[in-house]
Amino acid sequence: MKDKFYQYIQDLQNTITSKLEEVDGKATFKEDMWKRPEGGGGRTRVIEKGNVFEKGGVNISGVHGALPKSMQAYFKVGDVDFFACGLSLVLHPKNPMVPTVHANWRYFEMYDKQGNTVDQWFGGGQDLTPYYLFDEDAQHFHTVCKTTCNRHNPNFYRTYKEKCDAYFWNAHRNEARGIGGLFFDYCKATDTMPLEAWYDFVTEMGNSFLDSYIPIVTKRKKLKYTQEQRDWQEIRRGRYVEFNLVHDKGTLFGLKTNGRIESILMSLPPHVQWHYDHEPKKGSEEERLIKVLKKPKEWI
Amino acid sequence: MKDKFYQYIQDLQNTITSKLEEVDGKATFKEDMWKRPEGGGGRTRVIEKGNVFEKGGVNISGVHGALPKSMQAYFKVGDVDFFACGLSLVLHPKNPMVPTVHANWRYFEMYDKQGNTVDQWFGGGQDLTPYYLFDEDAQHFHTVCKTTCNRHNPNFYRTYKEKCDAYFWNAHRNEARGIGGLFFDYCKATDTMPLEAWYDFVTEMGNSFLDSYIPIVTKRKKLKYTQEQRDWQEIRRGRYVEFNLVHDKGTLFGLKTNGRIESILMSLPPHVQWHYDHEPKKGSEEERLIKVLKKPKEWI
Repeated sequence: MKDKFYQYIQDLQNTITSKLEEVDGKATFKEDMWKRPEGGGGRTRVIEKGNVFEKGGVNISGVHGALPKSMQAYFKVGDVDFFACGLSLVLHPKNPMVPTVHANWRYFEMYDKQGNTVDQWFGGGQDLTPYYLFDEDAQHFHTVCKTTCNRHNPNFYRTYKEKCDAYFWNAHRNEARGIGGLFFDYCKATDTMPLEAWYDFVTEMGNSFLDSYIPIVTKRKKLKYTQEQRDWQEIRRGRYVEFNLVHDKGTLFGLKTNGRIESILMSLPPHVQWHYDHEPKKGSEEERLIKVLKKPKEWI
Repeated sequence: MKDKFYQYIQDLQNTITSKLEEVDGKATFKEDMWKRPEGGGGRTRVIEKGNVFEKGGVNISGVHGALPKSMQAYFKVGDVDFFACGLSLVLHPKNPMVPTVHANWRYFEMYDKQGNTVDQWFGGGQDLTPYYLFDEDAQHFHTVCKTTCNRHNPNFYRTYKEKCDAYFWNAHRNEARGIGGLFFDYCKATDTMPLEAWYDFVTEMGNSFLDSYIPIVTKRKKLKYTQEQRDWQEIRRGRYVEFNLVHDKGTLFGLKTNGRIESILMSLPPHVQWHYDHEPKKGSEEERLIKVLKKPKEWI
């Protein structure tokens, strides 16, 4: 399973970066191969200063070895070996009318010291962070999520949509990072859902990513915007930074377990602003966004 | 002691904000009084878009009540009451030749349920974060710190300078946030250093702040700079954000114990950049700064 899934994310990285370059029409991805001293490594691909994408990364990694102490405590296991691989992407468009998107699909295995597999599971999800809210874009994104979920289990969409709203919650601001999507983790084999079925689910989610996001980009990337709207985008990107550095388990984990810093922090936006006590004008589009983020909404 | 120290920081806030407005010559501090629902409150003063100060805050607060659960665990105490007050300041100058400065002086008391004081201590410090390194500025800042320390104990400067280097360490970047200064905490009464003597020490530190910083501002605020130097400042401000959101105990504490968000996050710089894998040119001033930050230096 681990070889099959690692092959899958390598192919998916190629598919996604090719399509994004085509949509951007100017910038191309810069590739960095890196090795983890304790075992494994990754292929980081970053795009910067494009026509459409101001900054973004589509990274894969496959790491293995002894499970670090901090992760043993986190997973409440003893001294085991592990293998983990996944694809992680974040795209920060230049135009504030185009939403930021994040996605991740991953697979984890643990072994005892005799090399027997003791646990294995999939995780992942995708979520959208608009700066200006087009309801039809949110509906489109959620519809693709739901359609793909429904091919596997009629409860997945509701369950994973709620987990996503709960996870991407900027607790100190009492608001959501964005308008959500899906978040699933510890997807383990059961009688009705063997590991192969989870593989099918996760890879179909990965395959549906471009369908969920590219039509939105295409529709919004040429919209005109003002300097004030750009400032608003940069202020809201500040909230994105706050979430990733204060709350995001993946980021903090990477930072605290000697991950490759530049690959982890590629998720941070290129230009960001913080102003004291910034409040959008009453009745404005900016205020409408905040109101929606205060209480996660059913989009479909 | 608590009334005396709270009166002191109120006066110090007035002294510091008056002087900073005079130095800036354009912007003035905006004041927000706020109340903490569980007891106490604060007086936040923020300056923005000045001639010299692009963003800064000089805040005081005095809070009291039952010690929150999360703080009980942190201090390893039971269900006690507390009083805490302090002044916290961060100044982000516009000109990249002028360093960012941070300072904080605080007093903490704990009481049992009969109202008996069970613990009381002072803490604080001040540290400098340059974007371009003028050795004489670092020396000046540290000389003021040392001179003030030496009036109280010949070991204080060395001890608190080392604590500062250890505390303001961006571990995930393996570099210091800036060129340090002083950091002290849990300064409790002893036979040779009663609480009154700590009060004298901490208030003299507070009184020396303007002497440590203003001469540097005056010397550098009119220096010319390029867009590239400004970009470098914004990139380095990104490291400031990373420290404050990932490592700073004060910030995380505030965020996780329902503090006043806008007062806590006034420390974040106004304009910030993150680029993938940015490396300064070989032999440049930017590279020299990084090298110094990799290994804390004796400035005097």
